[in-house]
Amino acid sequence: QTDKTPKNTNVRISLPAVCCIWQIAMIILFGIFIRYNEESDAHWIDHKTSNNISSNIENDFYFRYPSFQDVHVMIFVGFGFLMTFLKRYSFGAIGFNFLIAGFGLQWALLMQGWFHSLDPMDGKIKIGVESMINADFCVASCLIAYGAVLGKVSPVQLMVMTLFGVTLYAVEEYIILSLIHARDAGGSMVIHTFGAYYGLSISWMLYRPNLDQSKHRIGSVYHSDVFAMIGTLFLWMFWPSFNSAIADHGDGQHRAAINTYLSLAATVLTTIAISSLSQKTGKLDMVHIQNATLAGGVAVGTAAEFMLMPYGSLIVGFCCGIISTLGYIYITPFMEKYLKIHDTCGIHNLHAMPGVIGGIVGAITAAAASEEVYGKEGLINTFDFMKEWKYMVPTRQGGHQAAGLCVALCFGIGGGIIVGCILRLPIWGDAPDNSCFDDEVYWENNPPTVEYNNHMRNKAV
Amino acid sequence: QTDKTPKNTNVRISLPAVCCIWQIAMIILFGIFIRYNEESDAHWIDHKTSNNISSNIENDFYFRYPSFQDVHVMIFVGFGFLMTFLKRYSFGAIGFNFLIAGFGLQWALLMQGWFHSLDPMDGKIKIGVESMINADFCVASCLIAYGAVLGKVSPVQLMVMTLFGVTLYAVEEYIILSLIHARDAGGSMVIHTFGAYYGLSISWMLYRPNLDQSKHRIGSVYHSDVFAMIGTLFLWMFWPSFNSAIADHGDGQHRAAINTYLSLAATVLTTIAISSLSQKTGKLDMVHIQNATLAGGVAVGTAAEFMLMPYGSLIVGFCCGIISTLGYIYITPFMEKYLKIHDTCGIHNLHAMPGVIGGIVGAITAAAASEEVYGKEGLINTFDFMKEWKYMVPTRQGGHQAAGLCVALCFGIGGGIIVGCILRLPIWGDAPDNSCFDDEVYWENNPPTVEYNNHMRNKAV
Amino acid sequence: QTDKTPKNTNVRISLPAVCCIWQIAMIILFGIFIRYNEESDAHWIDHKTSNNISSNIENDFYFRYPSFQDVHVMIFVGFGFLMTFLKRYSFGAIGFNFLIAGFGLQWALLMQGWFHSLDPMDGKIKIGVESMINADFCVASCLIAYGAVLGKVSPVQLMVMTLFGVTLYAVEEYIILSLIHARDAGGSMVIHTFGAYYGLSISWMLYRPNLDQSKHRIGSVYHSDVFAMIGTLFLWMFWPSFNSAIADHGDGQHRAAINTYLSLAATVLTTIAISSLSQKTGKLDMVHIQNATLAGGVAVGTAAEFMLMPYGSLIVGFCCGIISTLGYIYITPFMEKYLKIHDTCGIHNLHAMPGVIGGIVGAITAAAASEEVYGKEGLINTFDFMKEWKYMVPTRQGGHQAAGLCVALCFGIGGGIIVGCILRLPIWGDAPDNSCFDDEVYWENNPPTVEYNNHMRNKAV
Repeated sequence: QTDKTPKNTNVRISLPAVCCIWQIAMIILFGIFIRYNEESDAHWIDHKTSNNISSNIENDFYFRYPSFQDVHVMIFVGFGFLMTFLKRYSFGAIGFNFLIAGFGLQWALLMQGWFHSLDPMDGKIKIGVESMINADFCVASCLIAYGAVLGKVSPVQLMVMTLFGVTLYAVEEYIILSLIHARDAGGSMVIHTFGAYYGLSISWMLYRPNLDQSKHRIGSVYHSDVFAMIGTLFLWMFWPSFNSAIADHGDGQHRAAINTYLSLAATVLTTIAISSLSQKTGKLDMVHIQNATLAGGVAVGTAAEFMLMPYGSLIVGFCCGIISTLGYIYITPFMEKYLKIHDTCGIHNLHAMPGVIGGIVGAITAAAASEEVYGKEGLINTFDFMKEWKYMVPTRQGGHQAAGLCVALCFGIGGGIIVGCILRLPIWGDAPDNSCFDDEVYWENNPPTVEYNNHMRNKAV
Repeated sequence: QTDKTPKNTNVRISLPAVCCIWQIAMIILFGIFIRYNEESDAHWIDHKTSNNISSNIENDFYFRYPSFQDVHVMIFVGFGFLMTFLKRYSFGAIGFNFLIAGFGLQWALLMQGWFHSLDPMDGKIKIGVESMINADFCVASCLIAYGAVLGKVSPVQLMVMTLFGVTLYAVEEYIILSLIHARDAGGSMVIHTFGAYYGLSISWMLYRPNLDQSKHRIGSVYHSDVFAMIGTLFLWMFWPSFNSAIADHGDGQHRAAINTYLSLAATVLTTIAISSLSQKTGKLDMVHIQNATLAGGVAVGTAAEFMLMPYGSLIVGFCCGIISTLGYIYITPFMEKYLKIHDTCGIHNLHAMPGVIGGIVGAITAAAASEEVYGKEGLINTFDFMKEWKYMVPTRQGGHQAAGLCVALCFGIGGGIIVGCILRLPIWGDAPDNSCFDDEVYWENNPPTVEYNNHMRNKAV
Repeated sequence: QTDKTPKNTNVRISLPAVCCIWQIAMIILFGIFIRYNEESDAHWIDHKTSNNISSNIENDFYFRYPSFQDVHVMIFVGFGFLMTFLKRYSFGAIGFNFLIAGFGLQWALLMQGWFHSLDPMDGKIKIGVESMINADFCVASCLIAYGAVLGKVSPVQLMVMTLFGVTLYAVEEYIILSLIHARDAGGSMVIHTFGAYYGLSISWMLYRPNLDQSKHRIGSVYHSDVFAMIGTLFLWMFWPSFNSAIADHGDGQHRAAINTYLSLAATVLTTIAISSLSQKTGKLDMVHIQNATLAGGVAVGTAAEFMLMPYGSLIVGFCCGIISTLGYIYITPFMEKYLKIHDTCGIHNLHAMPGVIGGIVGAITAAAASEEVYGKEGLINTFDFMKEWKYMVPTRQGGHQAAGLCVALCFGIGGGIIVGCILRLPIWGDAPDNSCFDDEVYWENNPPTVEYNNHMRNKAV
């Protein structure tokens, strides 16, 4: 508050303007394009008769809605609370997470709809429960990116980042899933690899050499670490739903849930092992517990619906717990010092590396698939070797998976650099270097608690 | 603690007495009246055979239980934590919320049972998963009412308020849904309008002219605002389940979830826009984020299962975010100053206005329904134009919807005034004007934290 | 920090070693033994055809996955946050809970698999969604035991305790459910009675006569009590899913959910009544609200799937709220003073007594079962009077239930004493008597908050 730089953080015009204009645009575009699909339209009763569907329980709603709700919790409570660990940025963590997600999911329904569920008969996008899950998935990639720039950007920048992020995501997803025909039920490539490199590239472009002026605010207090564990646990618990939400009905969803459950369990143990090893006295670090324990869920995303086998899932989780924790100890400081990439939440360790590992595991598992393990029908079913892909074979599928990973990387890095350039314009109202990680900039002033006052006073003394 | 008024807040006799007597009464009444319905009774296996039901999955449990659990979370964690925002009333918020809900749901099963699921064959009420959802819904209206009087009443008053609230709710619900044949899947009228006006009327009757003696305790601290966001987010995320929980199997539930999901997303953006606009420097206010973001879910309650169309949902959410936030800025202070209604949580902005809007939107949407949009079968199915209502037409249905809204308003206001009179009796152990919003009155003393001590000390200085 | 005893709390070798070795052992054993079952294997599509299953919705995944996720939340957020009430042991509560559960569920899949789902054709354990629920259940018993020793043991001791706990659980469960043919859907005997007596026996063996050196850390602060309520509420809300998760498809699950819902509601009222009665001025105690409100869920576990009747559930909840609250007031201090059993979380009142009551209620309800109430088919179905048990009758089933309860008690007490002996070895790195209930021992140092500093300063003065 003493050396206030002249930087203008007033977003009173820009933020409401962006929110209102974009929301009105959404209403118009939804009016033109978006309709209910067969299963959520009042004509379902006719559709049921004409398609000889015996029961309402066959409506996709009952296959996917419980998973959708779990994913929804991950997006809003999981990501939101995971980022509350900073001592004075909890409002920004939860509030801007809420803003990004609320806007992003609408734009995602449109963008994904144009690519995936456009009805050629009437030119309308038909949405249902699966569209909502996919919109939440798309938003997840933007929230991952937010983790890299947490505390350093304005809400208007976040809105811009989300607009482009969702757009890039929809294109990348279309290329990977539809053109290349890679499979990616849990989104190791499509969501995590893309989102993480998108965020890291933006953070690189927005590098602040004088960020150490806000250094005393990077870090947690006791209670903020407990709040962050709410986010961690809801992500951890519901990750089996995340990876199985859009997997095939029946064994696909079932297997994806089991694989994710196992992988995550193994990650907990190796994270704790490495965290303890990294300190002279064997003490554990909350940062690792909050983040690295989730790496197993990311890394098993692509292969979750394949016959990875239970022990395969454990191996993936085992390795990722180690790699991710080591990342927090060695790679994050290295990246900040030498590569000029400041990564507030360590998304490189939680999403980028495990995402790439997940893509590779997926490629290997796909290439190794055989009729012996899957059954003749099961193989076709799992990998969707139908229609124009009916002559596809597992080994080639492995290659396509690897190609998908490359596309995700390119879109993430390339898109992030371009969007980062845009965000460097001096019009977005971001905070000066000495006011980062501080809710006071964008949030109405609560009388700061004594806890914080004393902290400041102690510093002054 | 200095100017302790002689008001007696000792509830050591009254609270245990009320809890025990009413709980014993519940046991006796349940013993006389309540039994399992066909789907939860051990005779289900015979029922399945005789009704030619092919699979256990057709049991209503599998259609509704996931939604029930989401609603359950909204009632206990959602409402409970939403009210923890006060700096020293978190125990009261969560604890009394728990008490109200625990008692209310039992009484609701009985009251609603007598009106809706009395088996004429044996005079018993038959309960199942839908009864549990309806009981939770009924309790929701009492918890909404609690929001208006939070911090100003004793637990015994809350029990009385719940007893009458549930009773009024059951009657009002019967009139609106059964006699008038209005549709209200998400309860904009039945739950929100009724509950909010019930609470506001009670608050009006219990107006405390000297409440400014407790003014320093109205307001949040940093951590209490984060706790409140737990409530906000669980309400926000699970609102699609709330509005779809008792909608028709199949497309009804599916569509209700989609509409609510979209409406809520739009509300987030306009809430943030107005909140930012309302401050000179464009800062956001946590009170708005915690509350107004939910208005879209309330307002889309009645129409959620209709063919409101995705853009229609967005429009409803768009408007309610604006209206609700403006309510917090202008109407709540106005009501306190001029109408003598003190509304602790701002339920007028979150439930009353959006509830009324929801009723109106429902009436319009119903009146505008056509066979073209719904299909012949779909129209009958959605509006339940069957049996004695088989000659009903959409335009007239719109009128019935509007009539339903009026009934909800009358019951809320009228019931609230009567119950408010009862609660003014000086026997209930409510806190004196200088001890409102303070957990010390009804909760065993934790050594107050330093944070609070210093706050007091600073005031003393 | 002044009178540091020479006790060595460095776990830098032992903790990582145990985590890594056991995780590697898990991978090897999973590789040898564990495979997907028919419903999660890619051959499901063939299995469906050959078993004439018409739809994917018949996959057990759709019957049980929503309940599984609720149980999962109870294990990680419910148990984890319930134990955060201590002012400086929240990291240990959530973090070690996470560690125990992450390891325990893997070992449980193996141990339970050997006893319950070994495929005689190929010697493999076949897992599916029900296995995951059972593994979570098994882990629950170890987490209950953790409640008794919270704050007094090292993470390495917890790992040992979990290894033996899971092993004992699997054997005990096999004896009770398979050999004795007792029914125990919600695990009153198998989970709660066993887990609680296991933990209490260990706590007895590890009794610390000089624990009053850490006395000032036993107790909560305002915010830690609110955190604990997160745990309480998620346990309370999802308990119907816990008790119904592995009940029979159809009416079994449906009825178990209803009974638990009702029992828990009644418990809330009597807990509040007794809590208020116990204080001179009728104030409520958060410890009771956090814990005793859950006793009804424990006590209705065994009988939840029986025709306990709605009023029966209320009676069970009514009694348990009273007994459990009285336990916190009178029995816990008594046990510490005279029996040398220190029970940090009061698991004796929340799990041990209600668990035993649950076993007895189950025995009585089973013995009283009749064809009149259940129907001929319903009786066979509910009690599984099939195959080698087809000549079983209800009265004898009651005896078997009682026998099951005895087995759970013996395994709990006997196993706890033996494991307690092992944990007394001076090699496990547990904290000295003056550093119990303190996260500083095993967790990387956050700068302690002012709140805590001042607390210490006040003590010093």
